[in-house]
Amino acid sequence: MQNKRYKVAVLGATGAVGREMLTVLDEMRFPVSEVYALASEKSAGDSVPFGNRSLKVLAVTAEAFDGVDIVLASAGSAVSKQWLPIAAARGCLCIDNSSAFRMRDDVPLLVPEVNPEAISLHNGLISNPNCSTIQMVVALKPLHDHAQIKRIVVSTYQSVSGAGKKGMDELSNQTIALFNQKPFEIQVHNGRIAFNVIPHIGTFDNTGYTDEEMKLVHETRKILGDAEMKICPTCVRVPVFAAHSESIAIEFARPLTPAQARLLLESAPGVVVQDDPQEKVYPLAIDAAEKDAVFVGRIRQDFSVPHGSVLWDVSDNLRKGAATNAVQIAQLAVARDLVHGAAVVQA
Amino acid sequence: MQNKRYKVAVLGATGAVGREMLTVLDEMRFPVSEVYALASEKSAGDSVPFGNRSLKVLAVTAEAFDGVDIVLASAGSAVSKQWLPIAAARGCLCIDNSSAFRMRDDVPLLVPEVNPEAISLHNGLISNPNCSTIQMVVALKPLHDHAQIKRIVVSTYQSVSGAGKKGMDELSNQTIALFNQKPFEIQVHNGRIAFNVIPHIGTFDNTGYTDEEMKLVHETRKILGDAEMKICPTCVRVPVFAAHSESIAIEFARPLTPAQARLLLESAPGVVVQDDPQEKVYPLAIDAAEKDAVFVGRIRQDFSVPHGSVLWDVSDNLRKGAATNAVQIAQLAVARDLVHGAAVVQA
Repeated sequence: MQNKRYKVAVLGATGAVGREMLTVLDEMRFPVSEVYALASEKSAGDSVPFGNRSLKVLAVTAEAFDGVDIVLASAGSAVSKQWLPIAAARGCLCIDNSSAFRMRDDVPLLVPEVNPEAISLHNGLISNPNCSTIQMVVALKPLHDHAQIKRIVVSTYQSVSGAGKKGMDELSNQTIALFNQKPFEIQVHNGRIAFNVIPHIGTFDNTGYTDEEMKLVHETRKILGDAEMKICPTCVRVPVFAAHSESIAIEFARPLTPAQARLLLESAPGVVVQDDPQEKVYPLAIDAAEKDAVFVGRIRQDFSVPHGSVLWDVSDNLRKGAATNAVQIAQLAVARDLVHGAAVVQA
Repeated sequence: MQNKRYKVAVLGATGAVGREMLTVLDEMRFPVSEVYALASEKSAGDSVPFGNRSLKVLAVTAEAFDGVDIVLASAGSAVSKQWLPIAAARGCLCIDNSSAFRMRDDVPLLVPEVNPEAISLHNGLISNPNCSTIQMVVALKPLHDHAQIKRIVVSTYQSVSGAGKKGMDELSNQTIALFNQKPFEIQVHNGRIAFNVIPHIGTFDNTGYTDEEMKLVHETRKILGDAEMKICPTCVRVPVFAAHSESIAIEFARPLTPAQARLLLESAPGVVVQDDPQEKVYPLAIDAAEKDAVFVGRIRQDFSVPHGSVLWDVSDNLRKGAATNAVQIAQLAVARDLVHGAAVVQA
């Protein structure tokens, strides 16, 4: 099996997450035989980097998926809905970073450190959860296994890279404009983001929650396998370029001391504990940027409930929150020999 | 009584809050006969603005308090501990913005919209609560009166002006340095604050909480008069120049709908409701800066508990969170004729 190599297509290759997928494929030395960069007609002909090579961007067509083993998609829900069923029908394993299929019963919603067993159920399509969900469940899974989560109250501090390159450019341009007393535009975020925080990511439902917030509820329940888990989310954009931070208060069914939580997290896959507050050691967004782990700190007892913990987790939303998790799903599929049609391209 | 005018001294007049106290005294047309700007020896001789006048800064001495009716102090706990007992002994009503006396049983901890009745207990000393506490209790008091708060989970997004002018300068200097690829210093905050968030304000205790966080617990209990109230706090510094934001999940003993909460808040003193998410109306730090109100929005049901609400409040930490609240305490003392010794300076 270690000799198999795979034809991989990245759909949405010119976006912030698509580019990161190419970077992570290369960094993790994913066994590729070919890599295709697919995007919309208007990006066709551009080029994107893959390791020290340059890939020409191809317009996505049905035929572009012929012979492809694995599709990593991050081009938005509409594009995923249009093209991934076609790709899956042509034998590709599609790993989708959009929200299009996440809540479908026949589509695994996968974080390899948390619910790897769900991969066996795939029918050619696997969903990558939302960035803020991924880092939260990686941090909570070992605690949930030990003490059983009853309720979560989470407030996020989400970076502008969650809104893609345009989001990062807007923060940068607004900041420069403010220092030069020049006018600036507000296009990507729902208000000026420079030197501000905005309690609004996505669109509001009629109960006053955003879809970004409800993803934290529904996706966490699906991944942790508890449809009754109580979750109270607030999602907030902050003027940080990369990496989301989360303040999480957790109520458990059973006792869990901070020392136990720390031990469990220290041996948890994908987690790096940074927790020595007296020495000013706790996770920071600027340190987590461009890294693959979920960093956890400020682990302490929540004295306001019988069995509670509070913690602070930080992770790069373009890496573990998107590209890294997608590539790890592909790695898991390879390891379990669950890439459909992989045999045909055996080296 | 409306003819009485008062001799007011601002102790710590050259600091960010001290300057704001002078601004608010002037804006609110507090009935002053004289205003003295007091500070440490090293600031003596400087001048600070008061309306369109300029006040010469005097070094604080015991004699400086002679004949003064009201002292507004914001020079840190050590200075307050040293000088306010002396001032109070000389007949001054001291309103202290430091944490020095806040938890003392014989010192009222006062937010005029919330617990005005506590002022009658003063013995020459009244404490101004911490910034993050003030805005939270102003928003929660009308809800508490109606449905009785059992538990609060609060995560803050606190501006750098909470660290004074030095904090604002550091954010500014680091931001400029980053854009110019120049080195920068880290002195005021516990790490780079530009384009970062830092889950650390103040000093840590041996349970892993900061003193800033525990102020939210102890001060809220004292002000709302419920020593058993459950509060789970996380305090975070964000790269915002002015105004703190707070994400608050509240559990009540009795039912409270979002519509009821909105109505209660709309008629609450000191509160401005900004809550029309479909129209992108919610409180923002940049809008709250230099205003006196507590702005509340994102009011919604917390579906994770039987009786719960979630909301987002924003207020300028130098104004309502410090200077405005202190001047309002002085106004209340005047209105109730509780300024000791005021009679001697009757005009």
